[in-house]
Amino acid sequence: MASESGKLWGGRFVGAVDPIMEKFNSSITYDRHLWEVDVQGSKAYSRGLEKAGLLTKAEMDQILHGLDKVAEEWAQGTFKLSPNDEDIHTANERRLKELIGETAGKLHTGRSRNDQVVTDLRLWMRHNCSALSALLRELIGTMVDRAEAERDTLFPGYTHLQRAQPIRWSHWILSHAVALTRDSERLLEVRKRIDVLPLGSGAIAGNPLGVDRELLRAELNFGAITLNSMDATSERDFVAEFLFWASLCMTHLSRMAEDLILYGTKEFNFVQLSDAYSTGSSLMPQKKNPDSLELIRSKAGRVFGREDKEAVFEVSDTMSAVLQVATGVISTLQVQHENMAQALSPDMLATDLAYYLVRKGMPFRQAHEASGKAVFMAETKGVALNQLSLQELQTISPLFSGDVSQVWDYSHSVEQYTALGGTARSSVDWQIAQVRALLRAQQA
Amino acid sequence: MASESGKLWGGRFVGAVDPIMEKFNSSITYDRHLWEVDVQGSKAYSRGLEKAGLLTKAEMDQILHGLDKVAEEWAQGTFKLSPNDEDIHTANERRLKELIGETAGKLHTGRSRNDQVVTDLRLWMRHNCSALSALLRELIGTMVDRAEAERDTLFPGYTHLQRAQPIRWSHWILSHAVALTRDSERLLEVRKRIDVLPLGSGAIAGNPLGVDRELLRAELNFGAITLNSMDATSERDFVAEFLFWASLCMTHLSRMAEDLILYGTKEFNFVQLSDAYSTGSSLMPQKKNPDSLELIRSKAGRVFGREDKEAVFEVSDTMSAVLQVATGVISTLQVQHENMAQALSPDMLATDLAYYLVRKGMPFRQAHEASGKAVFMAETKGVALNQLSLQELQTISPLFSGDVSQVWDYSHSVEQYTALGGTARSSVDWQIAQVRALLRAQQA
Amino acid sequence: MASESGKLWGGRFVGAVDPIMEKFNSSITYDRHLWEVDVQGSKAYSRGLEKAGLLTKAEMDQILHGLDKVAEEWAQGTFKLSPNDEDIHTANERRLKELIGETAGKLHTGRSRNDQVVTDLRLWMRHNCSALSALLRELIGTMVDRAEAERDTLFPGYTHLQRAQPIRWSHWILSHAVALTRDSERLLEVRKRIDVLPLGSGAIAGNPLGVDRELLRAELNFGAITLNSMDATSERDFVAEFLFWASLCMTHLSRMAEDLILYGTKEFNFVQLSDAYSTGSSLMPQKKNPDSLELIRSKAGRVFGREDKEAVFEVSDTMSAVLQVATGVISTLQVQHENMAQALSPDMLATDLAYYLVRKGMPFRQAHEASGKAVFMAETKGVALNQLSLQELQTISPLFSGDVSQVWDYSHSVEQYTALGGTARSSVDWQIAQVRALLRAQQA
Amino acid sequence: MASESGKLWGGRFVGAVDPIMEKFNSSITYDRHLWEVDVQGSKAYSRGLEKAGLLTKAEMDQILHGLDKVAEEWAQGTFKLSPNDEDIHTANERRLKELIGETAGKLHTGRSRNDQVVTDLRLWMRHNCSALSALLRELIGTMVDRAEAERDTLFPGYTHLQRAQPIRWSHWILSHAVALTRDSERLLEVRKRIDVLPLGSGAIAGNPLGVDRELLRAELNFGAITLNSMDATSERDFVAEFLFWASLCMTHLSRMAEDLILYGTKEFNFVQLSDAYSTGSSLMPQKKNPDSLELIRSKAGRVFGREDKEAVFEVSDTMSAVLQVATGVISTLQVQHENMAQALSPDMLATDLAYYLVRKGMPFRQAHEASGKAVFMAETKGVALNQLSLQELQTISPLFSGDVSQVWDYSHSVEQYTALGGTARSSVDWQIAQVRALLRAQQA
Repeated sequence: MASESGKLWGGRFVGAVDPIMEKFNSSITYDRHLWEVDVQGSKAYSRGLEKAGLLTKAEMDQILHGLDKVAEEWAQGTFKLSPNDEDIHTANERRLKELIGETAGKLHTGRSRNDQVVTDLRLWMRHNCSALSALLRELIGTMVDRAEAERDTLFPGYTHLQRAQPIRWSHWILSHAVALTRDSERLLEVRKRIDVLPLGSGAIAGNPLGVDRELLRAELNFGAITLNSMDATSERDFVAEFLFWASLCMTHLSRMAEDLILYGTKEFNFVQLSDAYSTGSSLMPQKKNPDSLELIRSKAGRVFGREDKEAVFEVSDTMSAVLQVATGVISTLQVQHENMAQALSPDMLATDLAYYLVRKGMPFRQAHEASGKAVFMAETKGVALNQLSLQELQTISPLFSGDVSQVWDYSHSVEQYTALGGTARSSVDWQIAQVRALLRAQQA
Repeated sequence: MASESGKLWGGRFVGAVDPIMEKFNSSITYDRHLWEVDVQGSKAYSRGLEKAGLLTKAEMDQILHGLDKVAEEWAQGTFKLSPNDEDIHTANERRLKELIGETAGKLHTGRSRNDQVVTDLRLWMRHNCSALSALLRELIGTMVDRAEAERDTLFPGYTHLQRAQPIRWSHWILSHAVALTRDSERLLEVRKRIDVLPLGSGAIAGNPLGVDRELLRAELNFGAITLNSMDATSERDFVAEFLFWASLCMTHLSRMAEDLILYGTKEFNFVQLSDAYSTGSSLMPQKKNPDSLELIRSKAGRVFGREDKEAVFEVSDTMSAVLQVATGVISTLQVQHENMAQALSPDMLATDLAYYLVRKGMPFRQAHEASGKAVFMAETKGVALNQLSLQELQTISPLFSGDVSQVWDYSHSVEQYTALGGTARSSVDWQIAQVRALLRAQQA
Repeated sequence: MASESGKLWGGRFVGAVDPIMEKFNSSITYDRHLWEVDVQGSKAYSRGLEKAGLLTKAEMDQILHGLDKVAEEWAQGTFKLSPNDEDIHTANERRLKELIGETAGKLHTGRSRNDQVVTDLRLWMRHNCSALSALLRELIGTMVDRAEAERDTLFPGYTHLQRAQPIRWSHWILSHAVALTRDSERLLEVRKRIDVLPLGSGAIAGNPLGVDRELLRAELNFGAITLNSMDATSERDFVAEFLFWASLCMTHLSRMAEDLILYGTKEFNFVQLSDAYSTGSSLMPQKKNPDSLELIRSKAGRVFGREDKEAVFEVSDTMSAVLQVATGVISTLQVQHENMAQALSPDMLATDLAYYLVRKGMPFRQAHEASGKAVFMAETKGVALNQLSLQELQTISPLFSGDVSQVWDYSHSVEQYTALGGTARSSVDWQIAQVRALLRAQQA
Repeated sequence: MASESGKLWGGRFVGAVDPIMEKFNSSITYDRHLWEVDVQGSKAYSRGLEKAGLLTKAEMDQILHGLDKVAEEWAQGTFKLSPNDEDIHTANERRLKELIGETAGKLHTGRSRNDQVVTDLRLWMRHNCSALSALLRELIGTMVDRAEAERDTLFPGYTHLQRAQPIRWSHWILSHAVALTRDSERLLEVRKRIDVLPLGSGAIAGNPLGVDRELLRAELNFGAITLNSMDATSERDFVAEFLFWASLCMTHLSRMAEDLILYGTKEFNFVQLSDAYSTGSSLMPQKKNPDSLELIRSKAGRVFGREDKEAVFEVSDTMSAVLQVATGVISTLQVQHENMAQALSPDMLATDLAYYLVRKGMPFRQAHEASGKAVFMAETKGVALNQLSLQELQTISPLFSGDVSQVWDYSHSVEQYTALGGTARSSVDWQIAQVRALLRAQQA
């Protein structure tokens, strides 16, 4: 008889359960992450039962003491799972009963399993969101420090993987750091919606035994209380939100990793990855592969499209590792300043050449076409754009004159971009200050 | 020669373009939604150019006037697309040039296509988020009104599609309304991140011509300015966020639709859908199908996993239709109060029976088992749970006495659930007040 | 120095590796499933090396013997992982070296890790596809047997969850069984594309040491040899195909589970799930939840959208459990024949009423409208459709006469559907024969 | 009254339908693709009705003639949709009735809308799969021709974007062509499962009017007949299969595009895209962007995760354009043979250096480590790997002798890879022959 096996729904069943079915239904392998918050939640609930008169003070103390013992066993690695423990909640209650006897059976009064599961999950996720927030801010901080230190290095900015315009190396770093500040902001919003107490919702209709939910909220330090008991026990929006947050954050890290993989190829050769974040090949002795970056990129795929509780644990671990590896990669990356400088080429100043004509009064669309003709002329003649003679340029437009030579200076080019958000030094400094201010605000 | 066709990158190309490639690359079929915001953005930018001295006052006025004319043509349906208009931005500029001549060529000075595209998209989405917000609040408001009006109707609450406990019909409505309030909150957060000005970021390096981004922000009434020009032109987090918002909102509407489909079957028969939201069968004359609900459910699938600009237009339309249909369905739904009452059965009070024993001092786990034995005994004898005699109950536990008869009252059962969020009338009233307060706060 | 730790890329690295990075990169926790096929693949490769003259006969025997010992340790659970074993391949080779000394170092000659990984994965998946095929055919066979045995039970067929037409219960079973036969066919196609030897492709350029790939193919009993070495080591189409197969199969099982959950509600009450496939509630003593069916339904979500090697192991386990649980559910399900019969109602014969008029010569569109009017008339009068008098029917169409009474017989209705694939007994028998023939063909 | 509006379910409804709901439910905007197959299916069905005695020969001829007229109007662009045409099927039947009168109402006898929809969709998809098959084979053929012509060009093979080993350019082309042959094979399998007749399944129970499904199959040239009427009208496995096919095929094209984008950067400079497949920048005059390749890559995202009928039309169009653009790109691509040769560097022969030692009797693991030390020594000394002196090499292993100089020949290196599937010329020729044989077999 099933009741003998100590299953919670005890009294009614007469048939045996298909063993494959039991294994199939069990979540103990992954939800053991929850042991600590399960004890925490049960302690708060026993206080609620005591206040409602459903436990005596002595019974409550017995339960609190027993739960502390359970926690101690988990912390010391001495907790022994029994084959009938189908989830962490059953396991803890089973052990509590062994430790303190029948009083343990009062702990679940008016509490449903869903009540307990969702409370535990919110407690666990709240804690982990805080930890991930800190790691994320550390990464952003590292990036901003690096951006500040290497402000004077110019290199090609790319669009469509084609060289576009000269920019500061710091501008590239900040473009990724700024994306991550949005993730940091979003994570705080997700955490806010996680930080709501569901306990006291029962199975579906609510709690009929006078348990004070405000007391439970205060005990567990939640920011608010769920509004509707049916919604409270069934909704998992916060799980979906957390996973979406992770997807978007991984997308940003993945794009940064993709750029760095490229910048680290023999062909680009702008950066060199630390050995601590590289691996070799079992076959080709000369290989040094950017495995850390590739893993960051590939983990993005692992994060997308999951929607269950297991996913939360796995994705949280993945994010934690990824953020730390990314911080390590960024802080140890060696920049090849000379190669960066050499990769700048005069055709990347074609936009500046157009602006030169704009400043002389030509409408931009015509200036763009004129500059395009200069590029084509240089290509046809097999020379660099800045090697076209003034005469040659004047066949394209009479507005060209001697001062056109000032266009061919990369530093001067970059320094023009002074509008907020641009790549001029003043603007990069502004960005650094803005991101740091954001980090301080989010930390508070 | 390609430059003759008036393509924007004009001067350089010598080969012809594969026509399939052209069609493939064209976005004009779906981005015409953007005509209005494109004109709006261009007007603001021409003001920026004037302040920076790149347009004279007269040139600016000419451009502003021309753009108003373009807008007028769109509004009146007289704008004619030319086969070479590959997107809305090209089309508008081409038309502007026809209307005002060469000055039109100055409008794009220092502005990249990405600059323009992302500014337009943010303007469009900001507007549509506001519209969807209003529709969503209208739906929630309708639900809350209905919940208030039908507070006294009880019916079975289900878990696992099995009858669980008696609840108020309003409690069910509110469980869905509360879920939608989170969507409403999230949409405001998404809108906040959409409401950031990217214009003035150029292609990649920023704007080098002294355009005042603060002026642009004020002209277009954005709440903030993007921090980094590379990030500004490439990031589409707000698109992903909007689509995720739509996914989650559709999930909620889909679940509500699923419940209503079930409640409207012959077998449940709790609600009847208005003819305005039903359709028939082309083969079976007696059929009246809940197509509105099925469409709401199926549209959820359409919303998931899209990630492009086209998706934004389509998903926004879908959400708008779905929210309106849902509001219509809820406000016209006919509730079968009698069938609801008849669906309540004594075994749904088994939890209350266990609580009865708990109140007499039995630990909940034992009480749960005792109540389970009563259910089994009633099933074995083929009678309803409330038809077991006191003697029979006492064979299970001596704690049963004459007052057990009070357990078998559904209204009394429901009224026990007074903890915040429960199904007692006081708690339902509290929920209604809370949701209304939220709606008022979000409207502000 | 890294080389001391025995890593495969040994000689070159001088920096230490970030420990988070190492853990991040390690796959040993999940790829230990592969121990058996890894040994199998290595044994075949050592035979290839011997034939190519890169191992002496004695060396090959030493390696083969050592690998057998490694396998024995795994089989007996005595294999000890070392902290440096980053994957199953490293672990086995490390152990082999401990057992037989330096000769072990020759086994990897000309073989890349990718070569080895993909060969192992194909061997493992080939085996598991066969196992899943057998389980799937067992499920289909069980369904067909049940369909044969319960051919005479009629019940309502539903569309849009509204009662549509009377059908045989067997017809419903077969509709799901037929869907599963497509999965069975597809799995064989997937297996065929898995059954291709990649070994001998090296890292990228192929194998330069004269290893005979035809010998390797024969040793490992593959059906074919990959055509291009770059494609061979990098492509994972077969993984995507397998996961897609699982998605589609789970969709079918999930739909069947959804129907059964509904049919098992108090409101429908057509079937009763065996206790072996149900669970109770920790709070509500009377509950008996269809957890097996809900798990089948929810596992579908777990299968979708995964794309990695871990997914293969997990999805394969899931499919195996799901197929067995489904077989158990189907074979133990108790059908409530009487409730099924009682759920048939005259309005479900409205289509037959239209056909009655068609047979009298009325175009179908008019007959459909006439029958719809009869349904409306019956509803308005509050009577069943078959209780309309002949006079009443004749107000709708003069074509109605006394023989209309023959329409109101459910068995007669069902027996009309004799076209192939319909619900007439003869057609159901044909379906049973067809599915059985398919199963026999697929088994061969 | 709704019946007046001519809706198919006519007679029963009394309420009006919410106009948003109508628009929401309408599919006419996308399913007009189906006009041709809808007429084809209806013609076949009217022949079935005639054989079953439900149409006279004269009525059938009238219908056939009318349907031809409908088709003619579509073909000539003169078909006028009415606002009440909610889908293509309603539209065609409405028009037929206008053309031939009441007899049109007989066409739908015993046929359900689902019957018709799924038959049309299968006909349409069968046709399009054939067209896509041909385009795919043309692309593969182009690739193989190019691989044959450029067999003698060597360039670096990459793993992890790091230079790995010298390979033939043709070997790279064939790695992608071989992947596409699997898509070609899969498409034929999908087509086979599309090519099954559902018509004659009615709504759910089958066809009760003696329609001969074998006649319908023959009329519409289907390969087989669906087995179960419920499954036949509801299953869309073939849609999911087609979309999965498209996803996988797009993944392959996307990877090829990604490689080519990279090979076309200034930094790699291995290939140059034809102007016909490039575009410029509206801001930067010198830019020539690989838009065709980027569109191929980005369209992959559009194909994933769709699951509806609209998706079929859109994805089919996308695939058709993508395959043609890819064929154009490949056939016009200009290879920079010299740059390819110059990109080969001695460290890419480190594996060959290890094999050199293996051939002298050293176990591979030791040889790999020795070669790794040589790479490290060369890096430390700042020389190329082939510039280490024999003495220097001998400090690593005494097995090095004068013949080591033969290792430093790229052509010789490549020619070693003679195992089937490798990059030796003989093996590349074998691959070309194999792929061509496959194409011939699939064409048949």
